[in-house]
Amino acid sequence: MAVVTIISDWNKNDYYLAALKGRILSHCPDTTIVDITHQVSPFNSAQAAFILRNCFHVYPNGTIHLICVNTEASPDKPHIVVLAMKQYFIGCDNGIFGLLLNEDPEEIVTLKKDSHHPGMFAELFVFADCACGIIHKKKLHELGSPAKSVSKQIPMLPTIDESTINGSVVYIDSYRNAITNISRELFDQIRRKRPFDVFIQSNYYKINRINKNYYDSSSGEMLALFNSLDLLEIAINNGNAADLLNLSVNSVVRIKFYD
Amino acid sequence: MAVVTIISDWNKNDYYLAALKGRILSHCPDTTIVDITHQVSPFNSAQAAFILRNCFHVYPNGTIHLICVNTEASPDKPHIVVLAMKQYFIGCDNGIFGLLLNEDPEEIVTLKKDSHHPGMFAELFVFADCACGIIHKKKLHELGSPAKSVSKQIPMLPTIDESTINGSVVYIDSYRNAITNISRELFDQIRRKRPFDVFIQSNYYKINRINKNYYDSSSGEMLALFNSLDLLEIAINNGNAADLLNLSVNSVVRIKFYD
Amino acid sequence: MAVVTIISDWNKNDYYLAALKGRILSHCPDTTIVDITHQVSPFNSAQAAFILRNCFHVYPNGTIHLICVNTEASPDKPHIVVLAMKQYFIGCDNGIFGLLLNEDPEEIVTLKKDSHHPGMFAELFVFADCACGIIHKKKLHELGSPAKSVSKQIPMLPTIDESTINGSVVYIDSYRNAITNISRELFDQIRRKRPFDVFIQSNYYKINRINKNYYDSSSGEMLALFNSLDLLEIAINNGNAADLLNLSVNSVVRIKFYD
Repeated sequence: MAVVTIISDWNKNDYYLAALKGRILSHCPDTTIVDITHQVSPFNSAQAAFILRNCFHVYPNGTIHLICVNTEASPDKPHIVVLAMKQYFIGCDNGIFGLLLNEDPEEIVTLKKDSHHPGMFAELFVFADCACGIIHKKKLHELGSPAKSVSKQIPMLPTIDESTINGSVVYIDSYRNAITNISRELFDQIRRKRPFDVFIQSNYYKINRINKNYYDSSSGEMLALFNSLDLLEIAINNGNAADLLNLSVNSVVRIKFYD
Repeated sequence: MAVVTIISDWNKNDYYLAALKGRILSHCPDTTIVDITHQVSPFNSAQAAFILRNCFHVYPNGTIHLICVNTEASPDKPHIVVLAMKQYFIGCDNGIFGLLLNEDPEEIVTLKKDSHHPGMFAELFVFADCACGIIHKKKLHELGSPAKSVSKQIPMLPTIDESTINGSVVYIDSYRNAITNISRELFDQIRRKRPFDVFIQSNYYKINRINKNYYDSSSGEMLALFNSLDLLEIAINNGNAADLLNLSVNSVVRIKFYD
Repeated sequence: MAVVTIISDWNKNDYYLAALKGRILSHCPDTTIVDITHQVSPFNSAQAAFILRNCFHVYPNGTIHLICVNTEASPDKPHIVVLAMKQYFIGCDNGIFGLLLNEDPEEIVTLKKDSHHPGMFAELFVFADCACGIIHKKKLHELGSPAKSVSKQIPMLPTIDESTINGSVVYIDSYRNAITNISRELFDQIRRKRPFDVFIQSNYYKINRINKNYYDSSSGEMLALFNSLDLLEIAINNGNAADLLNLSVNSVVRIKFYD
């Protein structure tokens, strides 16, 4: 049974999503369609990439992911399908694949334009047909023309020196926790068991320990922990860190280690 | 494998939708249930009809569509099931079927009232059972009593003369584009290759060409194009046409052709 | 075919839900996953319990319900799985099972902590694996250690005397109707066919009859009826009772019966 996932900025009050699902079910009736989310902010490729990169790896091999954000193609940004890490991704080659994947795809194919509806609702007329082609066991090269590489936006990474990590917030989650781009691995590597302070919003707020659980801090207290993605997260137990600390995507989070 | 779709104004934070799905899955375990949307504005039959009419045709033959908006029946507005264009539609006969379908249904059946829960949650007690009856291969006439016609609200159509089309906005989509009731076919028929102006909000804004793609206009520029429904759409490339141009459902869009 | 439902306060713009579904589909490909709702207010166990208790009973026997609200476990609030009324419920033993179930569970098992991700995203690392264990026909006692009872928060019940019921609003639904904790059974028992007044917000508003349908009252009129749950509901026909009458969860609704 094939699995197709859909991520979009359609916000679920439109006919776009329902039409896309209907077309897939008409051509491939046994498909399991999963909504990743449809509440990506309009045109926010970085947000879509963050959400999808943190969940696609748990899907079965062969899952097809439709990336329905910023899908207007132009001559230098064609629609493509890529095979990477045993999963298929269909989207517009506008840089999002660099944010989504850690490694180069195994195979990249540029999809044909839809001649009947040029520029219009590519998800319905191009992406759905590509997904159904894959489900019907077509080879990728039968669905378009092979390409060598994808355009790459590069995710923002922390800068480091001997005793500092300068990172930033990359995502605000449902509980208004602020997730940073500072991984546990990087933190451990620079820290070398030294004491430290995590500075939030210049030097006004600081935290000098890492929690294992939210409840290790009392209610209302600011805290830092490594979340299920092993990324440093700034939170307030039973509170709303993003609003109370005025954090948003790109806010600076700096860690200083002391000898 | 049967497909059932659900459109409602329940907004997904209620037990209504979950109960409806559970009852269908209890009686018809192999059903694929698809959410069209649950963010129709409360009681807005016209919006529900617009969304459903623009996607039901891509669904497999035999799909059953549950229209869960304005479902309180009264003696002159019974619950009905209709077969039209090889698909089933279950709803309240309050005029919505005139907005939804271009042609008269092949078959119409008035559903029995639920005697245990009169007036209450008809979707659960009447619609689900009707859908399961169809899935279990019952004939429509076994589910109620045949009727001759449906009540019809008539969709608002443009008025035309030799050199003018007076249309209106019928839908604001997720990207805040304004979709009108002016079809490509009507436009071509009146235009006869003449130059034209599209006037938006009296005569303050005008557009004198039709784009093929959004990106044919530069960022922030107002534009008009025929969308995937072949309806004239007013948009702003990378912008928010509805808010910036103060457009909402029923706003007038007028096209004048010049000899 | 197994059915798994998910209720959460994730609000659908996060990777949490998509990851949870992916993991279930990877391990149990034929599962039907149903979203109960993801718009529970953050950390609102009472709202989650109200929604789930009013729909789980229509699901097929053997359905597995994942309760993804307030799931941070602590030594006195472990993750548990319970079997009750032929359905499985997986959640954190923080009192919600008392609000959800009318009777003691048949079987209760405390789940093992996930040693790799202590305190983090238990839904993915603990709940999903428990659900898949059940789907793969494991016995509950193979999934953890048997427990004797669940923690119980007690739902707020009306107080009564010979000629009065003091109840309260327990839920505001999608249409802004106010649903109370006064059941039809209790009402009939105290009423004994006497006339009555329903008082809303001290004594300012009152209603002296029970509608069968919303449309028994004219548009804009305040009304009371027993809804599909057989609970007394305060509504305004074609209006918004919660806002117009300033009702919210815990607002008092009092009924006085007259000899």
